[in-house]
Amino acid sequence: MTTSIEATRLGELLDRSAAAWASSADDDGFGLAAATLDGEVHGVGAWRRPFPIESISKVFALALAVARDGAAVWQRVGREASGDPFNSLMQLERDRGIPRNPFINAGAIVVTDLLLGMTGDACGAVRELVCRESGNDAIDFDPTVVATDAHGARNAAIAHLISSYGNLDASVDLVLEHYYRQCALKMSCRDLALAAAFLARQGVGRRGVHLLSRSDAKRVNAVMLTCGTYDAAGEFAYRVGLPGKSGVSGGLLAIVPGRCALCAWSPQLNAAGNSIAGIAALDAFTTLSGWSVF
Amino acid sequence: MTTSIEATRLGELLDRSAAAWASSADDDGFGLAAATLDGEVHGVGAWRRPFPIESISKVFALALAVARDGAAVWQRVGREASGDPFNSLMQLERDRGIPRNPFINAGAIVVTDLLLGMTGDACGAVRELVCRESGNDAIDFDPTVVATDAHGARNAAIAHLISSYGNLDASVDLVLEHYYRQCALKMSCRDLALAAAFLARQGVGRRGVHLLSRSDAKRVNAVMLTCGTYDAAGEFAYRVGLPGKSGVSGGLLAIVPGRCALCAWSPQLNAAGNSIAGIAALDAFTTLSGWSVF
Amino acid sequence: MTTSIEATRLGELLDRSAAAWASSADDDGFGLAAATLDGEVHGVGAWRRPFPIESISKVFALALAVARDGAAVWQRVGREASGDPFNSLMQLERDRGIPRNPFINAGAIVVTDLLLGMTGDACGAVRELVCRESGNDAIDFDPTVVATDAHGARNAAIAHLISSYGNLDASVDLVLEHYYRQCALKMSCRDLALAAAFLARQGVGRRGVHLLSRSDAKRVNAVMLTCGTYDAAGEFAYRVGLPGKSGVSGGLLAIVPGRCALCAWSPQLNAAGNSIAGIAALDAFTTLSGWSVF
Amino acid sequence: MTTSIEATRLGELLDRSAAAWASSADDDGFGLAAATLDGEVHGVGAWRRPFPIESISKVFALALAVARDGAAVWQRVGREASGDPFNSLMQLERDRGIPRNPFINAGAIVVTDLLLGMTGDACGAVRELVCRESGNDAIDFDPTVVATDAHGARNAAIAHLISSYGNLDASVDLVLEHYYRQCALKMSCRDLALAAAFLARQGVGRRGVHLLSRSDAKRVNAVMLTCGTYDAAGEFAYRVGLPGKSGVSGGLLAIVPGRCALCAWSPQLNAAGNSIAGIAALDAFTTLSGWSVF
Repeated sequence: MTTSIEATRLGELLDRSAAAWASSADDDGFGLAAATLDGEVHGVGAWRRPFPIESISKVFALALAVARDGAAVWQRVGREASGDPFNSLMQLERDRGIPRNPFINAGAIVVTDLLLGMTGDACGAVRELVCRESGNDAIDFDPTVVATDAHGARNAAIAHLISSYGNLDASVDLVLEHYYRQCALKMSCRDLALAAAFLARQGVGRRGVHLLSRSDAKRVNAVMLTCGTYDAAGEFAYRVGLPGKSGVSGGLLAIVPGRCALCAWSPQLNAAGNSIAGIAALDAFTTLSGWSVF
Repeated sequence: MTTSIEATRLGELLDRSAAAWASSADDDGFGLAAATLDGEVHGVGAWRRPFPIESISKVFALALAVARDGAAVWQRVGREASGDPFNSLMQLERDRGIPRNPFINAGAIVVTDLLLGMTGDACGAVRELVCRESGNDAIDFDPTVVATDAHGARNAAIAHLISSYGNLDASVDLVLEHYYRQCALKMSCRDLALAAAFLARQGVGRRGVHLLSRSDAKRVNAVMLTCGTYDAAGEFAYRVGLPGKSGVSGGLLAIVPGRCALCAWSPQLNAAGNSIAGIAALDAFTTLSGWSVF
Repeated sequence: MTTSIEATRLGELLDRSAAAWASSADDDGFGLAAATLDGEVHGVGAWRRPFPIESISKVFALALAVARDGAAVWQRVGREASGDPFNSLMQLERDRGIPRNPFINAGAIVVTDLLLGMTGDACGAVRELVCRESGNDAIDFDPTVVATDAHGARNAAIAHLISSYGNLDASVDLVLEHYYRQCALKMSCRDLALAAAFLARQGVGRRGVHLLSRSDAKRVNAVMLTCGTYDAAGEFAYRVGLPGKSGVSGGLLAIVPGRCALCAWSPQLNAAGNSIAGIAALDAFTTLSGWSVF
Repeated sequence: MTTSIEATRLGELLDRSAAAWASSADDDGFGLAAATLDGEVHGVGAWRRPFPIESISKVFALALAVARDGAAVWQRVGREASGDPFNSLMQLERDRGIPRNPFINAGAIVVTDLLLGMTGDACGAVRELVCRESGNDAIDFDPTVVATDAHGARNAAIAHLISSYGNLDASVDLVLEHYYRQCALKMSCRDLALAAAFLARQGVGRRGVHLLSRSDAKRVNAVMLTCGTYDAAGEFAYRVGLPGKSGVSGGLLAIVPGRCALCAWSPQLNAAGNSIAGIAALDAFTTLSGWSVF
């Protein structure tokens, strides 16, 4: 579809998307990158500047856990939008310890626990994946990134509540340690677009290895589209129309199935916790390219 | 993408999808139809048998209201999954009369009220649209289809609650009358696939007229994908991967953007209120064809 | 207990309680009355000025229904504080149509339905009771008192929701008509104190007839203390320490078991919907007299 | 009031109350004691057998904190019934870390934190109080009483959530340690009735010292009546009509203001977590004696 636009070079599309957002955008506060199916990567702005990936790590952790045992994952985490702010305990109590989806904090804590049991080193497994797929071995955890006290206390509350329902195998302390470490991985838009391109390639990794089955790759994309941007997933689907996952440091990953992986970054967030400039740039990108999934 | 499968004829895909569900399926209890972009229609089983379209009417009402004034619609209804069973009043109270999305009962009641104000005859406008697009002037309201007492009372509660927050213009009685009448439209899988094909054609109706702008057509599809199957929209996106809308009489509409509109029908429902055989058939269809949006 | 204070004359106590609230209190905006066990009545301020009794009517309706068939009442209404604002539908949905207690609107609507079934004329039965016990046959419904639109719509929502769970026998319209009419009874502090004195007399009415058994009278008092002042029943018990029931027009009834019935009136309400001056005067009264139940 | 019954000796009342519950009651599984204003104590059954007091400790902790600084207490804890099961996190989240009342776990955790700040040794202060008032210096913490894993995890979740809203001063671990230790105090019905008799004496302790002001004693009683028996406080007020506080090991304390303190014990609990035989015995006691507060 939209073949006339398909001919447009990706670099030009990125430039126009960034410009559409704000011609005066300070390069230091905004980056946008796209990685194609064959491993090329293009970018504008601060697309090579690393930032803590925060909740975008949830996508990689989920993919790793699903690759090992999808059935085990979906027994312990749901697939529905939460309908509540991203850190709500109400739903968790109502559903007796089963988080609504793997992209709210509660769900990601359970996925981390699963991955710990599967690998013995959850955050190490995530790091290994993103280094390999991005071709950047320098990606590492930033020891200075820690949860603020209030968020730390709330996540501890969440983890203890999940544990009270028997939905954690490892200790709360160990699970939270791995959960926080994976959030502290520092990556650039370039790294993230490359590392997530397997989701645009129906599960096939950089060197042709199947990281996920075709079905599982589609399914991870489906969960990203319905649940990836907190309580604003419907709004994101409406405006951008792509599977996406945001992080509190301003990163925003999006997948164009069969074409490319995109990553925007800009630190200012809207009320729902998503990057304002990131959404605007992706909105412009899909409008210009016609590459929404709908 | 998936060009080898693309060559497969649509009729054959439908046969195999229906067979994949249950080789012994009684033709009387199952139908499946697909309408292509150029207005052809194929089907298997009871695909010409009319049934009350129930909540599938919400798609047509929404499209009509958005076509007239999208901004007005999205001021009075949200776009997020509800996270609660489809008829919950809790959310409505928390959000002070603004329904979470146009496909839960509360949201559809507000859309009906909007369409009443825009057209003077909400259910007449829906009927006119589906007759024209399906090419079947015999489509009409079934006077014997009425809300059960319990559902009627609950919808009355919902409408009065919305009204208490000032989010209805017309009287509760008039809005509910139009709401119920549009649910009582009797259409077949064939009629529904043809009538909804404009959503696969980026908003272009049967005779080439733009019913919706390209953006608005994509957006209606996005809302269908994130909110179209009650509290199981994530599950539907995960399994089927298409924008879809179900009805309590067993109908299930799905859109393959840029390719076709599908409609399955089979009366037995799962706990979330969606047709069991309908989901299975669409799951098989997207697996066989590779035509998921992800 | 507190025999030294018991010798104090009731009239003097009322004067000091009213004065304690505000020496400058405009007589027109405040009234306070006390009816003793032997049928005497004392008052200060505008204690003879009638006002619509609103939710105080719920006490009389409950007493009448319990007197006829207490078991039937407590099968259809609970006895616990609501923990939510007085008109919340959330609880009603969670508990499948059984209101938490008879003093929130939902519970009073069910009691009205019960009383309709028992007497054929619920608001007539309430009027007959208050006329007889107060010795004032002129008490009547004020036809100009009607629910505001927003409250009317919300109560309609509540009644339809209860009906959807099968917890109403009569039609929503008939039940609401009786519910509103009993709220529109116009009575003074004098009338209300006299009419409710049977609750201070262990159920014995003005002329010595048992309106309620001793047990049932205590139980109605217990429900008033735990649920009588909306979401602030704990606060009222803490400050005043008496069974009490408030109304949105500023009336506030309180029972001193074994001693007297009190009624204050002043139209300005706090955030919880209770009369500010009424609570202050009753607080002063119990402090001066030592007549809290604790 | 009820002077004819007042002449009845307390011991006889206890015997008849115990008998009213079940003539065949095994002495080992049931105890009942009453302590009078002048420090006498009577009992039946296993009234001298110690058991872990569990949540009854919340009454003593609250009294100690209120005695030191009531205003500080009521800034950080509410006074309303919870309307939710006793360990719900939903309300805590809705009210941003302020527990509804001091007798749900969340509220007691905050009171323990307050008392820690006031005394440096919260559970030591509680132990000192109950030893002194009961005249039994042997009362001590049972080291074998610990929270079950599930309850421990849930209380940890509650404490972390409160902490996330800034409503804890000490560390979660220290507060929980003191919270659990005070629950593990082992006392008999005799000990508890004597230790709580100051609440029947308007705040005056065993040796005539004012532990609480008259107002504060009444207020603690008011909170016990409206919130002391979890989600069944209304039911308890309705049946028994006294301020009361239950514990999960089967203890049930009740206050007859101006007369005596009662304590029943029997391990079998109803669905709301209150002792079945304890409620039955207190129900019989108030019916026989006429000593309800209403």
